[in-house]
Amino acid sequence: MGGGIGSFIGPVHRMAAEMDGLATLVCGAFSSSAQRSIASGETIYRIPADRSYGSYEQMFLAEQQLPQDQRMDFVVIATPNHLHYPVAMAALESGFHVVCDKPVAFDVEQALALQSKVSECGLNFALTHNYTGYPMIRQARALIQEGKLGAIRRVNCEYLQGWLAQPMPDNKQADWRTDPTRAGAAGCFGDIGSHAENLMSYVTGLEIEALCADTTTFVPGRQLEDDGNVLLRFAGGAKGVLSVSQIALGKENDLTLQVFGDQASIEWRQDDANSLIVRYADAPMQVLRSGWAGTGAHSTAATRLPPGHPEGYLEAFAEVYRNFCKHLLGVVDVADYPGIAEGVRGMRFIQSVVASAEQGAQWVSLD
Amino acid sequence: MGGGIGSFIGPVHRMAAEMDGLATLVCGAFSSSAQRSIASGETIYRIPADRSYGSYEQMFLAEQQLPQDQRMDFVVIATPNHLHYPVAMAALESGFHVVCDKPVAFDVEQALALQSKVSECGLNFALTHNYTGYPMIRQARALIQEGKLGAIRRVNCEYLQGWLAQPMPDNKQADWRTDPTRAGAAGCFGDIGSHAENLMSYVTGLEIEALCADTTTFVPGRQLEDDGNVLLRFAGGAKGVLSVSQIALGKENDLTLQVFGDQASIEWRQDDANSLIVRYADAPMQVLRSGWAGTGAHSTAATRLPPGHPEGYLEAFAEVYRNFCKHLLGVVDVADYPGIAEGVRGMRFIQSVVASAEQGAQWVSLD
Amino acid sequence: MGGGIGSFIGPVHRMAAEMDGLATLVCGAFSSSAQRSIASGETIYRIPADRSYGSYEQMFLAEQQLPQDQRMDFVVIATPNHLHYPVAMAALESGFHVVCDKPVAFDVEQALALQSKVSECGLNFALTHNYTGYPMIRQARALIQEGKLGAIRRVNCEYLQGWLAQPMPDNKQADWRTDPTRAGAAGCFGDIGSHAENLMSYVTGLEIEALCADTTTFVPGRQLEDDGNVLLRFAGGAKGVLSVSQIALGKENDLTLQVFGDQASIEWRQDDANSLIVRYADAPMQVLRSGWAGTGAHSTAATRLPPGHPEGYLEAFAEVYRNFCKHLLGVVDVADYPGIAEGVRGMRFIQSVVASAEQGAQWVSLD
Amino acid sequence: MGGGIGSFIGPVHRMAAEMDGLATLVCGAFSSSAQRSIASGETIYRIPADRSYGSYEQMFLAEQQLPQDQRMDFVVIATPNHLHYPVAMAALESGFHVVCDKPVAFDVEQALALQSKVSECGLNFALTHNYTGYPMIRQARALIQEGKLGAIRRVNCEYLQGWLAQPMPDNKQADWRTDPTRAGAAGCFGDIGSHAENLMSYVTGLEIEALCADTTTFVPGRQLEDDGNVLLRFAGGAKGVLSVSQIALGKENDLTLQVFGDQASIEWRQDDANSLIVRYADAPMQVLRSGWAGTGAHSTAATRLPPGHPEGYLEAFAEVYRNFCKHLLGVVDVADYPGIAEGVRGMRFIQSVVASAEQGAQWVSLD
Repeated sequence: MGGGIGSFIGPVHRMAAEMDGLATLVCGAFSSSAQRSIASGETIYRIPADRSYGSYEQMFLAEQQLPQDQRMDFVVIATPNHLHYPVAMAALESGFHVVCDKPVAFDVEQALALQSKVSECGLNFALTHNYTGYPMIRQARALIQEGKLGAIRRVNCEYLQGWLAQPMPDNKQADWRTDPTRAGAAGCFGDIGSHAENLMSYVTGLEIEALCADTTTFVPGRQLEDDGNVLLRFAGGAKGVLSVSQIALGKENDLTLQVFGDQASIEWRQDDANSLIVRYADAPMQVLRSGWAGTGAHSTAATRLPPGHPEGYLEAFAEVYRNFCKHLLGVVDVADYPGIAEGVRGMRFIQSVVASAEQGAQWVSLD
Repeated sequence: MGGGIGSFIGPVHRMAAEMDGLATLVCGAFSSSAQRSIASGETIYRIPADRSYGSYEQMFLAEQQLPQDQRMDFVVIATPNHLHYPVAMAALESGFHVVCDKPVAFDVEQALALQSKVSECGLNFALTHNYTGYPMIRQARALIQEGKLGAIRRVNCEYLQGWLAQPMPDNKQADWRTDPTRAGAAGCFGDIGSHAENLMSYVTGLEIEALCADTTTFVPGRQLEDDGNVLLRFAGGAKGVLSVSQIALGKENDLTLQVFGDQASIEWRQDDANSLIVRYADAPMQVLRSGWAGTGAHSTAATRLPPGHPEGYLEAFAEVYRNFCKHLLGVVDVADYPGIAEGVRGMRFIQSVVASAEQGAQWVSLD
Repeated sequence: MGGGIGSFIGPVHRMAAEMDGLATLVCGAFSSSAQRSIASGETIYRIPADRSYGSYEQMFLAEQQLPQDQRMDFVVIATPNHLHYPVAMAALESGFHVVCDKPVAFDVEQALALQSKVSECGLNFALTHNYTGYPMIRQARALIQEGKLGAIRRVNCEYLQGWLAQPMPDNKQADWRTDPTRAGAAGCFGDIGSHAENLMSYVTGLEIEALCADTTTFVPGRQLEDDGNVLLRFAGGAKGVLSVSQIALGKENDLTLQVFGDQASIEWRQDDANSLIVRYADAPMQVLRSGWAGTGAHSTAATRLPPGHPEGYLEAFAEVYRNFCKHLLGVVDVADYPGIAEGVRGMRFIQSVVASAEQGAQWVSLD
Repeated sequence: MGGGIGSFIGPVHRMAAEMDGLATLVCGAFSSSAQRSIASGETIYRIPADRSYGSYEQMFLAEQQLPQDQRMDFVVIATPNHLHYPVAMAALESGFHVVCDKPVAFDVEQALALQSKVSECGLNFALTHNYTGYPMIRQARALIQEGKLGAIRRVNCEYLQGWLAQPMPDNKQADWRTDPTRAGAAGCFGDIGSHAENLMSYVTGLEIEALCADTTTFVPGRQLEDDGNVLLRFAGGAKGVLSVSQIALGKENDLTLQVFGDQASIEWRQDDANSLIVRYADAPMQVLRSGWAGTGAHSTAATRLPPGHPEGYLEAFAEVYRNFCKHLLGVVDVADYPGIAEGVRGMRFIQSVVASAEQGAQWVSLD
């Protein structure tokens, strides 16, 4: 659903979903026009015309009619944000498992409604917070869960892009992301800030109690914020700071995370994704490497290649799919991928950032 | 063909071949035992039992019987080196296109025989020198072809691994690579030195005229060299030096290339594969980045994601397959992937290294 | 003045002051005990006993008696913060020029009183914000002054140390820095936050209009904050964020600065001090290097060695002294070093951080 | 001696010698013309006219007449290579200790004659192989001496500069370095190759038994080689490869060393001089940092600042002087600095490279 011609994330989902041989794209509603959907299906995905639908409603209806071994098992929602909720609800109501892009919905209310539905229907729901799929992110999480960092004191997170530093009138990707009717109440915080929030939460396990967000719309005429800094207070006393920008000119897709405990600290940069720096007070700095000594089962399970064969964004994205598929196929019992709970939390975060910013960057509680 | 349980490169070929949606693994002879082949097919590749064959001869015979739209179009040879030649010859004789692992054959004679056969039968033949698929390697090649580096003077190449620093008696990967009856006359120079030779040739376009190779077998009892340094003289006067090792303890898979011209120089490290450093005498150092300004059509065509979304080894490997498939499908006219000519050249290189080393590291001409 | 046995910064001042052959340490009041002062003078600085004084009052008195060509020309104040003001005032009143450690005083009032005195007496006053001496920091400043970055939108600055992550009961350096009677109202923000503020100001030329500081004392029993994050609003509309910590366990002395304009952005890390990354929207990333093409007169003047001969902290520190001495000697007319104005501004910054934090991290105006 | 106007290394020696307060430049023969010597003395070094001599003979004579507490203690020879020998001999004969630039002499015979003289006269002799002064180089040496790397198998060393990539007709530095009557039999191998040889030897303790050097003069009209690669065989069976160039366009002063043992390996780059990478087969990669945990007494003694305060080339150079002065002053008993033995070995290395190259890159024994 979604991912038609001109989409960035559509082909990413296809490559990620199919990488481990556990899923195959069999159909799609790639556009709201039947004709364009068929064109996208053929050109981009090599899907036959009779499985390229003109609407998600048609798709769910038609696929339900097909014999079990031919019809689609789960739907991937790769649309602009405002469609996540209606499509996800329809999918769950039609009996299809769901893999949904972030943020999970348009607002907290929709997220909560989805959560009820998921809980009620018993179907699987994955949210593609793909950064959780990096082996070294899983390693960082494991180190913290094992207590290697001690009590966490400080978290520094940056997610900086520069591609929206200027107005981009004719860019499909920019268009909907800066339109409040399709993106939601937040601009860069909905698009990439939500990834950052999820990453901090996934790695540290800490809950944000309060935040103070100073956001800005730098590009004239833009309706949503394209930049912001947020002070964070976590339950238990840790402090944090988050920088999010899509006008950080020259930055590509720089996501970095530093976590400081009272026993050790870690540093990770997506740009050197296969390394995890671990620092100690009384021991040499270590650089843990994907698949090398010193990494544990959780990170190793997320690698596909021997050490030194760089794995990147697609492989991490595929990890979400691999775990979702293994869960769906019954290979594993645990849902080791972000789901609806993460979606609700993410929407609360976005809503709080917007609320804080609207008050001129005052402290806002999350509860 | 090959790639059964315990294989590293088998699943790599599968993921790379399928990444761009242009090919699907439909059958295989994954082992010399029919039973193990079926097991590998099911477990690793989800291939039905009736398409998992016990030998390549059976596979070619059986697939030939299938209707055109069901049978395999090309065969992937991912076996130990000694089987490349017989399988490739059989495939070509059976009318199947071939994608073959490097080195292309056991010796120069086999390579030449294959070259004749390819030329004669008109089928397509790709050699998976996957490092040519990195966008920044393609960019480096383009810069040199455009004359940006001027006349090339010096080439430094290192391909250093450490995984064979100790004897590895029970490791399937180590086993055949250190066995002259399956690997051929060379150890690390056949396995990874051939990649390095191909990379230098691909990027610089220079031909090696003479070399002097000092190779060593450091691990006691090993029959093939596991380390070596080679002085290189290229046609036209450039000089080079190549370090190849599988006993460089602690190194993962470190492939680096530096090329110095009289106008500019470039540096690339697989560990930071999405960057290409370009240095000038009278201008600031540049770091070209996959998909960013300053890169050209050849490198951009080899990226799948926006800048800052790291692409790695699998994506580069997939580039060989993508270009092979597009050529096969008639989407492009040009065979923009390494082929049999590169295979012959690689075998000549390996043979010359062995010859030089056997004479106590004396100069040997390649002609 | 100050810098006795156990001092870190004393020998730094000596090496920096003497590096360019423009100054020589001739006397000192290295301790408040005459005996210890003489011992420090002899052991650390090879100063004869009759020029090692037991108090700054004695030193100023005695040196005033000496013939012009023998007596000290300027005094270096390298004491804990609470002594900066009385010693500086006494020095200026005794007719000696002053080089003073940061922060310039104990509070804003003292800083303003010093400013009046300096203005009144016509003597030279340098504040050792040594980070301004790095060639690539001067280059960054020049790029911004030349308009290469366009309008500045975002500033990210981190100054993270970890050496105070645990209580350090017997450490002389830690002792006074965490004691409000000697350090002043702020802990890490006085010690290193003031450097960060100066660096941002020096490079960008922007004035902080308001800030919101969330500071924390993580180590139990400590009286001053050892960590904090600050949201910044600059005159003209730029936004910023500053992280300062001395409990960032495992961090050595990590000072990093990123500045994003609407035309280009820069990134500098002290850990790679001889490089300055410059990014553009439509051109390749550049890495400017000390002394190499693309750098201008201001940065070149601050280098002493050809490119590729790493220069570090001492050389940058020496740059403050070199410019101070050249000004004193009349070689140059301009005071190209931080002075009392920077000192006043720094104290205002520290005071505002403390005020904001005391109110539970509310916004505070600086005016 | 030497180091007049236009000299690079003269001021470096002055800054390095004086950094630790153990030596002061008091006189010099800065040029072969008395007038220019006086001008250099005044302009660059602030030396009074009566201590700036027009020749080294005059200087030795005049200084000998001065009272012990005023006359120079040791002479620094910072001239082009052809003057090292006569000045050093004259200094030793006049009773002055010597600090001499590398390479120690014009040929092996001169080096041996100097060695006899040093041994006979009992004066101290230091050779400024300044790279031995880096803390992390000393740490690397200590690790190897402690057996942490096990038996050494492979050494990779690169010393690449690009500043001579084009003819430099009016450059004083380039001029004598490419003139066989002043530089000696070798170009880049005398100038920087000798540093690389010393570094490998200092760190590994291995003796070169044989080498095969393929050198080139790339710049037309130049009389000495400006580039070369050397295969190395060490006593005990280790192998090595060395790349030396002054035409590696775009390279500043890139000196890198990798040493691989059968237990661990190390990697050091001058560009990141305060880090030493240590890799193990069964443990995470470590990055040892100057002054941090995991470093030992030898490296710590060579640091002057807390961790994270970058130290560079001058500080390393000063380390040679500090150890020389402490030895001279009797503070330590051991001559912990390169001396005449290293000078002889270096000349043998240079001579062997030249001999090998002249034979078309044949193997040459060093014995």
